[in-house]
Amino acid sequence: MKALVHEGTAGINGLSLRKMEDLEPKSEEVIVRLKTAGLNHRDLFTLDRHKPADPPLIIGSDGAGIVEAVGENVLNIHVGDEVIINPGIGWEDKTNAPPQDFTILGHPFNGTFAEQVIIPAKNTAKKPKHLSWEEAGVLSLSALTAYRAMFTRAKIKPEMKVLIPGIGSGVATFLLQFAKAVGATVYVTSRSEEKCKKAIDLGANKAIDSNEDWDKALDGEKMDLVIESVGAATFTKSLNQVIPGGTVVTFGASAGDVTQINLRTFFYGQLNLLGSTMGSNEEFLEMVKFVETYKIKPIVDRMYPLSEFKQAFRRIESSAQLGKVGLII
Amino acid sequence: MKALVHEGTAGINGLSLRKMEDLEPKSEEVIVRLKTAGLNHRDLFTLDRHKPADPPLIIGSDGAGIVEAVGENVLNIHVGDEVIINPGIGWEDKTNAPPQDFTILGHPFNGTFAEQVIIPAKNTAKKPKHLSWEEAGVLSLSALTAYRAMFTRAKIKPEMKVLIPGIGSGVATFLLQFAKAVGATVYVTSRSEEKCKKAIDLGANKAIDSNEDWDKALDGEKMDLVIESVGAATFTKSLNQVIPGGTVVTFGASAGDVTQINLRTFFYGQLNLLGSTMGSNEEFLEMVKFVETYKIKPIVDRMYPLSEFKQAFRRIESSAQLGKVGLII
Repeated sequence: MKALVHEGTAGINGLSLRKMEDLEPKSEEVIVRLKTAGLNHRDLFTLDRHKPADPPLIIGSDGAGIVEAVGENVLNIHVGDEVIINPGIGWEDKTNAPPQDFTILGHPFNGTFAEQVIIPAKNTAKKPKHLSWEEAGVLSLSALTAYRAMFTRAKIKPEMKVLIPGIGSGVATFLLQFAKAVGATVYVTSRSEEKCKKAIDLGANKAIDSNEDWDKALDGEKMDLVIESVGAATFTKSLNQVIPGGTVVTFGASAGDVTQINLRTFFYGQLNLLGSTMGSNEEFLEMVKFVETYKIKPIVDRMYPLSEFKQAFRRIESSAQLGKVGLII
Repeated sequence: MKALVHEGTAGINGLSLRKMEDLEPKSEEVIVRLKTAGLNHRDLFTLDRHKPADPPLIIGSDGAGIVEAVGENVLNIHVGDEVIINPGIGWEDKTNAPPQDFTILGHPFNGTFAEQVIIPAKNTAKKPKHLSWEEAGVLSLSALTAYRAMFTRAKIKPEMKVLIPGIGSGVATFLLQFAKAVGATVYVTSRSEEKCKKAIDLGANKAIDSNEDWDKALDGEKMDLVIESVGAATFTKSLNQVIPGGTVVTFGASAGDVTQINLRTFFYGQLNLLGSTMGSNEEFLEMVKFVETYKIKPIVDRMYPLSEFKQAFRRIESSAQLGKVGLII
């Protein structure tokens, strides 16, 4: 089978398309023949984390396709089923944190940018009928991260006002869609006027320039909830924008890891800061059901044929996208 | 009536004992003749916050005594009742944050370092029989702060391991007693060997030097919960000492307000940082019931006659105490 393999050189230049051995499922595993796969920032990080001396690695976490073979002891999943893959391996229940041996498909184990992938049978969900293969392939990692951050962690309610700084990323667009689906009032920020406009089209109640004074741009309106993935660049602004007793969920730090916090302001405000990443298989199945119930369609920025993987990587590297970038396999 | 009044000069030198007018209760209010009162760091801050040009102020938040007069529409409280005062005025139910008009007795309104105090009738709880007047007078503000931090916010459970950095303060000793009462495993830190020893006597499972490498001193044992009131000096150590998915509650910053936080470490750890201060009247009544049920006795460091108020203030100013410092009125 054909696969996108990383080897030898850090970064995108270490990637090549090549033939790899066909796969055989073991007990409780299935082989999925991939139709589409989704790119995440994680894939970019992997190109640096996977060392030149390490054995060749098929990268990629997100994907959707058709079950091609099932191992022993696999129930309820059959050859020919159309499925979406949960790339989080080893985190079953909705616990406070993943178990120590939790891993994500694509590093250190072979991933989804290939014609075939091998995964535990329970890490699949039936593809909702309203999703195209393109939409199904880019769903998992971002939508699961958004789901845990917004439901398990932030416990969003319809009467809440929610702010989502940095609306460009895949997770951010899912956050916007999920929050609107439950009926919340949603404000977003972006440095890009174009992304602000697209966010309004997607249902955002207001979109402001990230570089502005948020409190002014929002007429002093404070939020019940801020879901923060920008990091150091916006963290203090995010904390300042919540009501007393309000919550900031943080799940990303693309613009800086380390920032200052004023503890006195924080505790006098009775604030909550909650960390989140990815989610369990239980949350994955809930998320797919939620997407199906509310007929949510992932915002697909652009799909590339597998052979154009370099262009796809460059698109997310430059943060030019709004929504998800994917590969057709 | 005699009262400790602040006027004219910032700090302790602005305090004097003098005669003030006797009080009359209005509707839904009671007059309490105080037997004892408790000192808090808040009282020290008040000596600077209350400006020289402001009218004379009777300071003090904590107190216990006997109901001397009741206003109209007061039910269930009678002249002669022995009561503990909740100094938090205007925060009734256990909400996420106090209402905007919430104030604490002793600033800007007259407080408890006096023979009489006037308060809303609902801001009293019957004094539990197992408490002496000394113990009852020093309970309210610290024990309520500890109760909200530990129960409402941290949701402590018997199977939890809890770390309390800086065991000297009144709130910290209540935290230790409350956590032990529910059956948790409790570790404490202090820079004082003597306070470490006293904490062990009070039931702490382990007491370590605050200046040491905590992870070493605790043999790498990680906590479900850290209840943090030291602030910048210990914040990073506290965050480092919790398990994945663990919680740090912060309600004080005696050693610095502003500190750094690594957001990536925070969200990969699925951590929770929860701010807390004081508590509602609902929590006050729960706290007094809890103290009664578990026969908890506040740790009284030292009581001073009202006339020796300067020595009392100096004792908490120098952080020499373990537990509460109080006044006999």
